[in-house]
Amino acid sequence: MEAVVLEDLASASRILADQGVFDAAGHVSMRHPDNPERFLMSRSLAPALVTADDILELTVDGESCDARRRQPFIERYLHAGIYRRRPDVMAIAHGHSPTVVPFGLVDTPMRATYHNAAFLAAGVPVFDIRKKFGITDIVINSAERGLALADALEDKSVLLLRAHGFVAVGPSIQAAVFRAIFTEISARVQLQAATLGGPIAALDPEEGRLADAINLATVGRSWEFWKRRVLP
Amino acid sequence: MEAVVLEDLASASRILADQGVFDAAGHVSMRHPDNPERFLMSRSLAPALVTADDILELTVDGESCDARRRQPFIERYLHAGIYRRRPDVMAIAHGHSPTVVPFGLVDTPMRATYHNAAFLAAGVPVFDIRKKFGITDIVINSAERGLALADALEDKSVLLLRAHGFVAVGPSIQAAVFRAIFTEISARVQLQAATLGGPIAALDPEEGRLADAINLATVGRSWEFWKRRVLP
Amino acid sequence: MEAVVLEDLASASRILADQGVFDAAGHVSMRHPDNPERFLMSRSLAPALVTADDILELTVDGESCDARRRQPFIERYLHAGIYRRRPDVMAIAHGHSPTVVPFGLVDTPMRATYHNAAFLAAGVPVFDIRKKFGITDIVINSAERGLALADALEDKSVLLLRAHGFVAVGPSIQAAVFRAIFTEISARVQLQAATLGGPIAALDPEEGRLADAINLATVGRSWEFWKRRVLP
Amino acid sequence: MEAVVLEDLASASRILADQGVFDAAGHVSMRHPDNPERFLMSRSLAPALVTADDILELTVDGESCDARRRQPFIERYLHAGIYRRRPDVMAIAHGHSPTVVPFGLVDTPMRATYHNAAFLAAGVPVFDIRKKFGITDIVINSAERGLALADALEDKSVLLLRAHGFVAVGPSIQAAVFRAIFTEISARVQLQAATLGGPIAALDPEEGRLADAINLATVGRSWEFWKRRVLP
Repeated sequence: MEAVVLEDLASASRILADQGVFDAAGHVSMRHPDNPERFLMSRSLAPALVTADDILELTVDGESCDARRRQPFIERYLHAGIYRRRPDVMAIAHGHSPTVVPFGLVDTPMRATYHNAAFLAAGVPVFDIRKKFGITDIVINSAERGLALADALEDKSVLLLRAHGFVAVGPSIQAAVFRAIFTEISARVQLQAATLGGPIAALDPEEGRLADAINLATVGRSWEFWKRRVLP
Repeated sequence: MEAVVLEDLASASRILADQGVFDAAGHVSMRHPDNPERFLMSRSLAPALVTADDILELTVDGESCDARRRQPFIERYLHAGIYRRRPDVMAIAHGHSPTVVPFGLVDTPMRATYHNAAFLAAGVPVFDIRKKFGITDIVINSAERGLALADALEDKSVLLLRAHGFVAVGPSIQAAVFRAIFTEISARVQLQAATLGGPIAALDPEEGRLADAINLATVGRSWEFWKRRVLP
Repeated sequence: MEAVVLEDLASASRILADQGVFDAAGHVSMRHPDNPERFLMSRSLAPALVTADDILELTVDGESCDARRRQPFIERYLHAGIYRRRPDVMAIAHGHSPTVVPFGLVDTPMRATYHNAAFLAAGVPVFDIRKKFGITDIVINSAERGLALADALEDKSVLLLRAHGFVAVGPSIQAAVFRAIFTEISARVQLQAATLGGPIAALDPEEGRLADAINLATVGRSWEFWKRRVLP
Repeated sequence: MEAVVLEDLASASRILADQGVFDAAGHVSMRHPDNPERFLMSRSLAPALVTADDILELTVDGESCDARRRQPFIERYLHAGIYRRRPDVMAIAHGHSPTVVPFGLVDTPMRATYHNAAFLAAGVPVFDIRKKFGITDIVINSAERGLALADALEDKSVLLLRAHGFVAVGPSIQAAVFRAIFTEISARVQLQAATLGGPIAALDPEEGRLADAINLATVGRSWEFWKRRVLP
């Protein structure tokens, strides 16, 4: 595998920490470029510290292939489940931003508050682990839980996990990072709009579809800027 | 053209990023000092990275005059339209601050919450692209859209773009930067006042007119401080 | 005058900028240690940049005594008026924190939300310049306006200025800085308590009086820490 | 005593300042590893400045054993009372985060908004010093007040102090730091959920118990990251 792939994935981890989407926890992965049955993800490590050398290879069943047997994240099953269910998904970010978590706790749907959050306009489902698994420790620590979560995601770009966090997916590592960042920012916009009261004139699904295409075409400009801030 | 003009425009871009008004996107422009039918604006680049060498010259129809054919921002038409409609405008800033976007989504008018935001007291219109163009990708990517936006601005200093962001204009680059910054801060004040509830004793239009004159006369003190923080 | 006095006043200015109470504007002053009819205050300059060499001497009528005729702040009259009316006041800070401004716009009284804000428990009046002066530019730019503001302050520690900002006063420069900082923080606490709804169990006036005495006795620990962060 | 113990306690103090839980005040302590009747706590000093050399040894009656007679914090009695009443508690953090203080002022109970805040699911009592001591200066400055506070804590992990702050306790210094940090973050989540309105689907007590076990088992990953940010 090319070193640049591992560097990009490690940069994605540090970018999401630098942009305040990740804190001491959070993880991002990408599908293996040469083997769709595998994905790449850092060992269990604070996301701000991840470098290319920390990346492990895992199967879409959540098994680590690391010859050095380094410790993977417990929640690798969250990634694994989505890679199995969604062949279109090439990268996944999972975090617990305090701005996003509220939307998994209440009935207010998350909206696409502006063009950068266009990918939210298709709808943002909520996964409540209690529905299928009853009382748990909340952690996505098995293939079964990961697949149930992937089912809840449907064909959307973002999924909220009740009392836990969120998942953002995309057709590239740049797109997944962009979506994780603007999920957080759009949540902030919506929370502030809520303090003003009344209905909000968010993007409708078709506006969202059109604006998302522009975002995907121009994501490189943001990516280069974000990456530059986290050079090792 | 004098180098100091380009340096000031590049500083304006970096200032608005440093002050949190711009993020990975946002752009600021100024009318050409010697040719009112042209304006200056950076190539498509994250605003925190702009230097004098990145500035392009464009016509008020939105055509780039750059001999090196570097890529301009798609939304140059937003600037172009305003320069055509508003001969008094010498500089324009356009951003997507998460604090300002909410005011383009709800019915609550933006108010001038204190003297530094005096320029808002004349009123802040909202441009909803749907009214004239129906379902779009939200982007101001044509001369026609730019002129429609400029019409919505009327004779005001700030315009909100529904589900998109805002525009601040002024009689100098320093004034446009000052207004962009205090649009963001006044929005924060108004959001916080809204959590307390009840009517707010904002500036009335005549207080705003008087206070704005003081602000324009003393903007240099803030400008020097902001610029110092973003020295290349 | 001892150099340490000027250094402390300059530190106070930089501290209030560093702690987010001041932005590109805001000013702090102290009564002259040897002449109660005079006070010390920086020339017109962004507060983060003030050094001991920028301090001017002024009379309590607001006239500058600076031999080098450097430009004083317009709003020196705000300080002058208070020094004339309140012999107990030895230092004054005036800023426009976006967290505090909302309380000058609505009917909700500012409360002492916790022990560090004990000085607020005696009550926080609001000065609305319209009451006495009608439509103005909001600026405290004359001895008459300064005295009217000082009258509104009564015997309190903090005064809100409608659509403008606030003033915090104290028996020492350390106390005035402490009060400006915790006015801002207590405002934040109260805004957040307001989002939860219902009455708030703030300090009552007698609790405030007792807790303020402890704060004044221990302010040195905070002062040393804040000062260390802004060493020139 | 091993130097690493003192280093960890000093790191805990700097971590809580770095993570925004402490400001110029706040203190953290740990039970003496070899003598359960004593505890370790820094001298009276801004928490961001604490190093291993600043740590004092105190009895669980709140008496300092420092041969150099350095000044202890007044509120050492808060720590002392809890160490006497709660043999399971090995470390305590006490701060005044403006995000947490609101919950001690209103009737809304603090909830466990997500897995990292699982320790809150057992309930968060509020200590109102007025109930037992009437009008005071709010400070926990005696063994009697410390014990009353410890009684209010019951067998819980976090206690709110009305108009003052909060206490977080744990079975290790890492656990107490983790809980102080996520008390602050969960408070932020709950405040933001409140602006959206309606009931919140927080963790129930049994989910909290299960998730807390995972947190305690994996706290090392966060601790290493936080500590790295505050290396002396």
